Amino acid sequence: MRCGKKLKKLTCVTADLTRSYEDGFGVNYTNRDHLPRRSEVVSVTDKLLELLFPGFDQRFRGEVDTEELVEICFDELASQICRALHRSNSSTCGCDEEARCEEAAFMLLSELPNIREMLKEDVKAAYIGDPAAASCDEVILSYPGLKAIAIQRLAHVLYEAKIPFIPRMMTEYAHSSTGIDIHPGAHIGKGLFIDHGTGVVIGETAVLGEMVRIYQGVTLGAVSFPKDACGALIKGQKRHPTIGNNVIIYSGASVLGDITIGDNSVIGGNVWLTESLPAGTKITAAMPENHKKFNGQSK
Amino acid sequence: MRCGKKLKKLTCVTADLTRSYEDGFGVNYTNRDHLPRRSEVVSVTDKLLELLFPGFDQRFRGEVDTEELVEICFDELASQICRALHRSNSSTCGCDEEARCEEAAFMLLSELPNIREMLKEDVKAAYIGDPAAASCDEVILSYPGLKAIAIQRLAHVLYEAKIPFIPRMMTEYAHSSTGIDIHPGAHIGKGLFIDHGTGVVIGETAVLGEMVRIYQGVTLGAVSFPKDACGALIKGQKRHPTIGNNVIIYSGASVLGDITIGDNSVIGGNVWLTESLPAGTKITAAMPENHKKFNGQSK
Amino acid sequence: MRCGKKLKKLTCVTADLTRSYEDGFGVNYTNRDHLPRRSEVVSVTDKLLELLFPGFDQRFRGEVDTEELVEICFDELASQICRALHRSNSSTCGCDEEARCEEAAFMLLSELPNIREMLKEDVKAAYIGDPAAASCDEVILSYPGLKAIAIQRLAHVLYEAKIPFIPRMMTEYAHSSTGIDIHPGAHIGKGLFIDHGTGVVIGETAVLGEMVRIYQGVTLGAVSFPKDACGALIKGQKRHPTIGNNVIIYSGASVLGDITIGDNSVIGGNVWLTESLPAGTKITAAMPENHKKFNGQSK
Repeated sequence: MRCGKKLKKLTCVTADLTRSYEDGFGVNYTNRDHLPRRSEVVSVTDKLLELLFPGFDQRFRGEVDTEELVEICFDELASQICRALHRSNSSTCGCDEEARCEEAAFMLLSELPNIREMLKEDVKAAYIGDPAAASCDEVILSYPGLKAIAIQRLAHVLYEAKIPFIPRMMTEYAHSSTGIDIHPGAHIGKGLFIDHGTGVVIGETAVLGEMVRIYQGVTLGAVSFPKDACGALIKGQKRHPTIGNNVIIYSGASVLGDITIGDNSVIGGNVWLTESLPAGTKITAAMPENHKKFNGQSK
Repeated sequence: MRCGKKLKKLTCVTADLTRSYEDGFGVNYTNRDHLPRRSEVVSVTDKLLELLFPGFDQRFRGEVDTEELVEICFDELASQICRALHRSNSSTCGCDEEARCEEAAFMLLSELPNIREMLKEDVKAAYIGDPAAASCDEVILSYPGLKAIAIQRLAHVLYEAKIPFIPRMMTEYAHSSTGIDIHPGAHIGKGLFIDHGTGVVIGETAVLGEMVRIYQGVTLGAVSFPKDACGALIKGQKRHPTIGNNVIIYSGASVLGDITIGDNSVIGGNVWLTESLPAGTKITAAMPENHKKFNGQSK
Repeated sequence: MRCGKKLKKLTCVTADLTRSYEDGFGVNYTNRDHLPRRSEVVSVTDKLLELLFPGFDQRFRGEVDTEELVEICFDELASQICRALHRSNSSTCGCDEEARCEEAAFMLLSELPNIREMLKEDVKAAYIGDPAAASCDEVILSYPGLKAIAIQRLAHVLYEAKIPFIPRMMTEYAHSSTGIDIHPGAHIGKGLFIDHGTGVVIGETAVLGEMVRIYQGVTLGAVSFPKDACGALIKGQKRHPTIGNNVIIYSGASVLGDITIGDNSVIGGNVWLTESLPAGTKITAAMPENHKKFNGQSK
């Protein structure tokens, strides 16, 4: 392609793209400050993890002490929350709204000691529940379940404060790096252990008690979505399970709908469950007989 | 280890490694330009996503406008395509071949407005199909299914143009960050929604109609691989399913082989399906009875 | 929030956090050198991959030749191993202990040619086993299974040398980027092919023969955890399966407990297996009959 021709063709591409942007779909550049930025939400999430487990991720330390890191997190959080709340006019963000952004950022930071208390139980639960766990330090350094739970506990505070966008961006960062998809809306008691974790899905209105243990591929999901008179989905209704204390759910099980699983129950691998269970129930799937053939002969 | 001894031992390691490279296996350094570079393929893919949803990822903006970003993408794409096509002699890449690289890069850029139209339907499908989706912006900012689909739509253009390596490198970037593995060869109609997505596999010769909805852990895979007279696998044959319009496939279902699922069908969770279905079929797995024990007593 | 008030509130947050750190839980900052750093373990792992497949990841090349890269890897490995071994007093790390760190780093580097021989068979197995694989280069450039296996083979050397923390940090890096969770303790023969791979779990005491093929969602796991007299889990016991040569395990199958699967066996999709199989066994799950309804009429 000769240079002149190449530039002309690229100019056409630009013109077509610019025309395509005119409908406003998926376009965020007219005002460059009006949506939270993914990379910055990830960055502040990592800094909050460092405040929860100080010294475990040295990238944010160096000369920075706890006080400075708290201030940096506050400023970054307030700025992203401001974007989230004022999608179209952040430059004219008034006093009251700025105050709300700062209040939300402050609330999350104030919760950090409480979240640390919850995570303490989560780490212990992993160490006690996994024969391969050599120490609590190993759990903090390398268990993906703990990272996913820690981020969800942070995101849940902002979800409860009705901050849009950011809570889900935080849990999707966790989902991307762990394969564990916990909606920021889920209520999770202390001492949750998710082992391996890839493929775990925990829905928006799920409620988990204390000391719950969950393995890879478990879904705590919805079974049907109620619609309004116009046929549109009704958003926000309770549609996911409530799980009691000390419940164990083995790999691949699906627990679906607004049902209740009583304390101390054990749900076996691959169980498909759409009804409530009283406390202390053990349930296993009746495994279909396997068909075996030995060297081509069935037996 | 004393310093002299240490250096001597490392020299031995280097010598052993260098000898091991002599068979040429897995070696790409004799000519440092002859395979596409993973980090650069990821980087240009991110820039293309920014052109599809302008302003959503500010890292590539700043002072750069659409025209400049189009030119940067063109140069980076053409350079990686050149490497992919001329694995061993890129420095002597002749006029005709350079033209082919630029044509392919240009073709992908020209498709961006059409891909935007497809993605518009994908975003709407997610908003309509998920009670937890609060807005279309949230879908663009945080839904992994949309990222995986957008990247596959980009990769598919290069796959159709028979560019080696790069399409699969692009979809594996998506797979790595979302857990959703869609081969660049798959034909995908507009309005696809993949919810949660971890563990989804869509094979090379799969064909999906419009407005299909798929949940986590679904496989659209092959059931057996035909071999040639020498016992080697025959590459490229149609071996994955064709899915009609408005089909819903719930979590964990496996749909396998070159079968056809008719329009408006619904495939239940965990269904294992290896035969075609007429339009409008609802199919659910006969769930095996669960065995319950209450407090140690079976019932 | 006025500035004075804001600073005062943040000071309270810092005070609360600092108080919360006093119990020592999840705190690593009293001595900033005493645990391996995640980002540095990831970085040296990437460099080791570059030594295994030279020229495939140009980030570590440029002017750096193999000899220099070997030396950099040695220093970085020895430094992280030193942190792992001397969690609390690395600054006073004595001569003997420094020698042990260097010995372990050296041992891993010396193993690279042998690991290359194993990976050669892994790459061939992928090319032979996947109709979508266009070339061995494509497998090296883009197959997540190969990345997970390569990293596990590196981590296994350090696991056998009883280095704490680092082996699991390496395999969790692989898990995070591929969805494939292979414990560093697993013994894996040459020629392993893991296709798609998301959700695969291979436990600490699993043993795999040569030329094994595994699909997405397969678990080689434990079925129960023996406890000691105090009710605590006994760590380190053999509790995962032993898989023979040339065994194929299709997607979603669970093979659980310290059982033995004989050579040349084939385990079908979704099979749930807790007993040993003799060589040459083909086993498939008796798929429950699917319930079909056509346009609302059951049939």
